[in-house]
Amino acid sequence: MGEFELIERFFKRPARRAALGIGDDCALLQPAPGMQLAVSSDMLVEGRHFFPAVDAARLGHKALAVNLSDLAAMGAKPLAFTLALALPRAEAVWLEGFSRGLLALADAFDCELIGGDTTQGPLNICITILGEVPAGAALLRSGARAGDDIYVSGAVVNGACEMLGQARMALEVARGTLALDAAAGTQARARLETPTPRVALGLALRGIAHSAIDVSDGLLGDLGHILCASGCGATLQADLIATNLIAACADNTLAKGLFDLNFARKMTLAGGDDYELVFTAPPSARAAVAQAAAATQATATRIGQVDAEQGVRLLDAQGQPITQRYDSFDHFKV
Amino acid sequence: MGEFELIERFFKRPARRAALGIGDDCALLQPAPGMQLAVSSDMLVEGRHFFPAVDAARLGHKALAVNLSDLAAMGAKPLAFTLALALPRAEAVWLEGFSRGLLALADAFDCELIGGDTTQGPLNICITILGEVPAGAALLRSGARAGDDIYVSGAVVNGACEMLGQARMALEVARGTLALDAAAGTQARARLETPTPRVALGLALRGIAHSAIDVSDGLLGDLGHILCASGCGATLQADLIATNLIAACADNTLAKGLFDLNFARKMTLAGGDDYELVFTAPPSARAAVAQAAAATQATATRIGQVDAEQGVRLLDAQGQPITQRYDSFDHFKV
Repeated sequence: MGEFELIERFFKRPARRAALGIGDDCALLQPAPGMQLAVSSDMLVEGRHFFPAVDAARLGHKALAVNLSDLAAMGAKPLAFTLALALPRAEAVWLEGFSRGLLALADAFDCELIGGDTTQGPLNICITILGEVPAGAALLRSGARAGDDIYVSGAVVNGACEMLGQARMALEVARGTLALDAAAGTQARARLETPTPRVALGLALRGIAHSAIDVSDGLLGDLGHILCASGCGATLQADLIATNLIAACADNTLAKGLFDLNFARKMTLAGGDDYELVFTAPPSARAAVAQAAAATQATATRIGQVDAEQGVRLLDAQGQPITQRYDSFDHFKV
Repeated sequence: MGEFELIERFFKRPARRAALGIGDDCALLQPAPGMQLAVSSDMLVEGRHFFPAVDAARLGHKALAVNLSDLAAMGAKPLAFTLALALPRAEAVWLEGFSRGLLALADAFDCELIGGDTTQGPLNICITILGEVPAGAALLRSGARAGDDIYVSGAVVNGACEMLGQARMALEVARGTLALDAAAGTQARARLETPTPRVALGLALRGIAHSAIDVSDGLLGDLGHILCASGCGATLQADLIATNLIAACADNTLAKGLFDLNFARKMTLAGGDDYELVFTAPPSARAAVAQAAAATQATATRIGQVDAEQGVRLLDAQGQPITQRYDSFDHFKV
């Protein structure tokens, strides 16, 4: 199978929103008047962002999901994306699965594949996503103000809670440092491999939230970006989310695990790959935040507040400071 | 050096055109009214698109140049780009060179780095470029009509000709199948490693050319995309460009080379990585094409015409058919 047959067979579909889709030197998009274009790129590398053995359809889903999550964190509506794909070999079975997972999520979010590149090389997936947001309405990292509440998103899907920390739990299971019952293990793995980007919540938070980011490297690191960009600090009810995670896993953790409070803090404060939104909003907007979450089948848990004082203060369930450090993921340091 | 220090130190600069540049979940661009957005992604893989030992600054130049060339082939004006970079290690010396070469070309074409991604992994460079073109004015692959002249671009820079085939010659030198004198070798290598995207020519051809593409995989393959999209065929004066190349190399080819007519045909018809424009225009536009080329310090050599009959007919200098086949580059077939 050659390069052009590969594109034709697995990725090319008629252009819908695009003025010109796959098949020329560039794609053409007609931006809507008054809208700003939100642009983000994410690259996924085998062995770094996913296991070599991961299911191709799930990988296709995740590659787009992490990009949709960047739009969600800006309050931007998905429009289109390009896919650059380096593959060791052009394998039809893998490509069928990958494109199916990718395009199913694209359809679910009405986000069109408009172009890209395919080449031979170590497996590498690079997606650049384009969204739109009314000028001035984007949720920036720099908008947090002292006194803002800090929230983290989640969801309840078919009676099961989606919350911060589960993706990292799946990673620990894969590493053999944690064991989970079948149901909890499956759910955690789904959170790691097929995260749900909170696009609808991000859109609903326009005009309500002062700042937002998505959790890819870990809560503390990603919230840190908001605080740094906004020139603020924060106090977090750290054990609120840790004990939530423990409660959700109470019946499910097998003996092999080390699921104590410290472990739960590590999962929730420093675990990455969750793609939940962390955002801040003034206390006067509490009802509006609850309404935005409810309207979009999401939850928004208030986990702390923004302080004028720099630095992050972690409090335990008794309101006492936690002195242990929890570091987020850094691609060149871990 | 961590991920964020790397970005801060080598790639982050104040936003100019962008409403929001590097440092949030997405960059924000304000499209101009009436303009369409041209979008293209190109991925460069070590060992496939460049030699592991290539100079970092030249690699930075080339990574952006191949993307600018896609805008040139659409007649689109460069606006901005994202850079996704997988690196085995964060090496300051390499990053300094790479970012210098990349950003120098970006400045030369007023094209702003607005975001991207950095990660640890096998060296892989993925750039997505954004340009603008008035609605309806883009140079498409599908616009060629029977009777159109076919042109290939080039330039004369400091008395030296830039023409189709030189990039492939540099590849042959690197492979040890061709030897060139120092001056010719240096020029050929510059054509391979630091190609000049014909952006100004592409803009000048708006309203004149019927169709355009840039030569990345080889003239026959890339022209083939125009013919396929336009439902036409072509007759090419194949030896016109081959003998031009031979003439340019007449004094320069060392004994080790096999620089006969067949070799020159291979370089010009099937050699890739030239990033010249191939375009078609009606015979009535010959003066306008010459004027567009002259105004942009480029050359436009007429090398054949578009036929209603499918297929490509190659003619030698005597007007006789050439029966030998010359194949373009395919990433999954070569």
